[in-house]
Amino acid sequence: MSAKKIFSSDKRPLVCVQGLGFVGLAVATVIANAKDSSGSPLYNVVGLDIPNRASFYDQLNQGQMPFHCEDQSFPQELKQAYEQKNFLATSETNYLSQADFVICDVNLDINLEEGLKDQNYKKAVEDIGNHIKEDCLVLIESTVPPGYCQKIIAPKLAELFLRRGLKSTPLLCHSYERVMPGADYLNSIRNLPRALSSDNPIALNRGHEFLQSFVNTKEFPLKIETQTSATELAKILENSFRAMNIAFIYEWTLLAEKMGVNLFSVVDGIKKRPTHKNIMAPGLGVGGYCLTKDALLAQWSCENLYQNEYGLPFSLEALKINKSMPLHTYQLIQNKRSLKNTSVLLMGISYREDVGDTRFAPSQTLAQALLQDEAKLSYWDSFVPEWRELPEVKALENLPTNAPLPHDIVVLVSRHQENLKREASHWCSLIKKGALVVDTFNILDDNKITALLDHGVEVIGVGKGHIPTLHKKLLESK
Amino acid sequence: MSAKKIFSSDKRPLVCVQGLGFVGLAVATVIANAKDSSGSPLYNVVGLDIPNRASFYDQLNQGQMPFHCEDQSFPQELKQAYEQKNFLATSETNYLSQADFVICDVNLDINLEEGLKDQNYKKAVEDIGNHIKEDCLVLIESTVPPGYCQKIIAPKLAELFLRRGLKSTPLLCHSYERVMPGADYLNSIRNLPRALSSDNPIALNRGHEFLQSFVNTKEFPLKIETQTSATELAKILENSFRAMNIAFIYEWTLLAEKMGVNLFSVVDGIKKRPTHKNIMAPGLGVGGYCLTKDALLAQWSCENLYQNEYGLPFSLEALKINKSMPLHTYQLIQNKRSLKNTSVLLMGISYREDVGDTRFAPSQTLAQALLQDEAKLSYWDSFVPEWRELPEVKALENLPTNAPLPHDIVVLVSRHQENLKREASHWCSLIKKGALVVDTFNILDDNKITALLDHGVEVIGVGKGHIPTLHKKLLESK
Repeated sequence: MSAKKIFSSDKRPLVCVQGLGFVGLAVATVIANAKDSSGSPLYNVVGLDIPNRASFYDQLNQGQMPFHCEDQSFPQELKQAYEQKNFLATSETNYLSQADFVICDVNLDINLEEGLKDQNYKKAVEDIGNHIKEDCLVLIESTVPPGYCQKIIAPKLAELFLRRGLKSTPLLCHSYERVMPGADYLNSIRNLPRALSSDNPIALNRGHEFLQSFVNTKEFPLKIETQTSATELAKILENSFRAMNIAFIYEWTLLAEKMGVNLFSVVDGIKKRPTHKNIMAPGLGVGGYCLTKDALLAQWSCENLYQNEYGLPFSLEALKINKSMPLHTYQLIQNKRSLKNTSVLLMGISYREDVGDTRFAPSQTLAQALLQDEAKLSYWDSFVPEWRELPEVKALENLPTNAPLPHDIVVLVSRHQENLKREASHWCSLIKKGALVVDTFNILDDNKITALLDHGVEVIGVGKGHIPTLHKKLLESK
Repeated sequence: MSAKKIFSSDKRPLVCVQGLGFVGLAVATVIANAKDSSGSPLYNVVGLDIPNRASFYDQLNQGQMPFHCEDQSFPQELKQAYEQKNFLATSETNYLSQADFVICDVNLDINLEEGLKDQNYKKAVEDIGNHIKEDCLVLIESTVPPGYCQKIIAPKLAELFLRRGLKSTPLLCHSYERVMPGADYLNSIRNLPRALSSDNPIALNRGHEFLQSFVNTKEFPLKIETQTSATELAKILENSFRAMNIAFIYEWTLLAEKMGVNLFSVVDGIKKRPTHKNIMAPGLGVGGYCLTKDALLAQWSCENLYQNEYGLPFSLEALKINKSMPLHTYQLIQNKRSLKNTSVLLMGISYREDVGDTRFAPSQTLAQALLQDEAKLSYWDSFVPEWRELPEVKALENLPTNAPLPHDIVVLVSRHQENLKREASHWCSLIKKGALVVDTFNILDDNKITALLDHGVEVIGVGKGHIPTLHKKLLESK
């Protein structure tokens, strides 16, 4: 079976993308729509994933998005790839044998409880080593433990080549994307600075040419490193920096609340200094696939690849602090109201604004704590019709228009525009008198808080200080 | 005795500045040179400090700088104040009774071993409360524990007013400067964004007007807070953020070194993201008066003013990590060479570039460890003729011009231009064959390192990976 035969042209180089998740499918789509100067597609693309996902492959091979996406260009470009007949989704690994380029976007998972889970990943690497041509370029895009390419993948590929009687050194590169789910999904692959590395100068050159063909390297020149471990480290350091900054603000949030100081205002002033622009604001906590785990991958490398006994205690502590952060909001609520049989509404559950992404969302930790206290929990998030991780918590069908919500407690979670742009009067019509509003992410400004307080609603907020004082001050200043 | 009589005009409002240290003297000088629209001085200024510093006051009252300063405009402006006869330095606290404004720039010290040392500070506050007029504005500029104005200073002033039979509420504000020792010293007082707060609206208004008269608030609008505790917190949070970022990179430095990765290059790539611009680079450690202690002040507030049991464990851990950082460089050296009777030269000892500031400098911790191992230690830093904290370590008279330095180990410390701009050939003529060069702050670029290696010098660097590998790579790429 020749892969190229099924495409509209068999003259294009073949790119296999392993792993059709959040990153892989976006990368495959971008590459399928990379064009030469005459507007013709540059590549044929085969997207590979695990077996037993027949309907997933069917959808993709009819040019349909298999999941919801806020970036409208994504389904359009997927359809375009379908129409130009240069994209195929399959679980057939032997397409790898015809590939000129393989991009590995398979997830390499790790968590505190179970450690590294790299069985699937090792299987993907073996598939590559067992099938590819000698001169095929292998580009690792997955977030892997630093040193993994050099110490695990490269030796494995070399071993499999040897077993197949191939004498070349496998051509291996590493480059990480900075893809962002949301309205700018595909754009975030093409138009963000990225790094490329290889321990092999030939692979580095070929990787450079390859990336130039679908990434805007003119405007965002590649950062080149001559060690794969350097870019592997960069990706994890980058995410750990952000996770640590979030953890840092946590303890100052607790202090600010005790002091009755609005930490958002304080942070706002500090951010005016260019050296302090990256200071984070208080909030419910941190979510998503990367920030909640990446430092663990580097800790794994300390223990397993580099005999670095010091490890990364500070960065790991940050992960733990972040994991516990939602419980602070839970305690704020618990200090105010009894939860048993109390109706609680979460306004937003996605960890990211204007996106329906609930992976490792802090709302989940909060919800689980509330459920344990037998609160009657529901949510409203127009980006998330069903809560995949907590299916027992149901979405409201609609926000009421004629009467207030029946809920005794309303927790504002996601910084969706639908929450930020809601007028004070609308908030007052939505929330019943005597209810408690908990603002976890500075969604309400002072005017809206004052309106709600005047309306007879109790308002508290993470990092917002003692709101009744604020109210008094606002009244005094009138 | 009337203070105003000794000035060229007695019609100007009188400003007393308490504490003539790094900040206070600069602030006093800036205020003495504040002018009205016709170019006449706006204020008379009395600078107050502790008794028994006769020669210090004599110098100041003859218009002479009492310490070395890299900002050439500072001595000029001090002389100008002398010539326009509107500045007096003294220890006579009764000048306070004629003040229209008092600015308190007295240091409030704290350290891990001894805790808060606020005797002097309390004395300064008592001087104010015992002397000032009812309508005098008190502006606290010192870094104090958050809550200190509201819970310690304000009640103390009120008590002293009451004792004097005064019925008004003392007018108290807080505003922190962001003064930076160096060539831009005075400018950093006039032209940086700053915050102002008061718990009292009248004091806030007067403070606003006062600051506008000597700070460029048009270009850098004041951040106004209605609680003194908010700006007190901001100052400390700001410095703790930076200290924490430095501590964070420490553990990644250790990992990068084990991996043989150049962390400076990795960080350089990460900084391209606006969300990651504040990530720090590896180095010898952190120095100075603020970053090494400020989180302790907030911890003191947790324990003594706010019953915040959680405290600031993450931020305190950062201080401890930073304190120990110089010992990592010591270990790098110790792993390479025996230190007993070995001659070691520190190139630079100031913690800040192009400034002679050795307060709490990490070079001091390194030097003490080297001395303990009986190394023969000297230094070269054109900004520091004498090492105040370690007088037993002597400065070189000059760098040799005809022969290499006799030292077996040369540690590059301060990022002074004199170190950064030195050519590869000059480095090779300075360092003798067989010597060890330790680059603690990325002072040498790859070309200079290669030149030194070729010259027969051994080079290692904090966060620089395995330099012989680098050398090999550079040679291969030729």
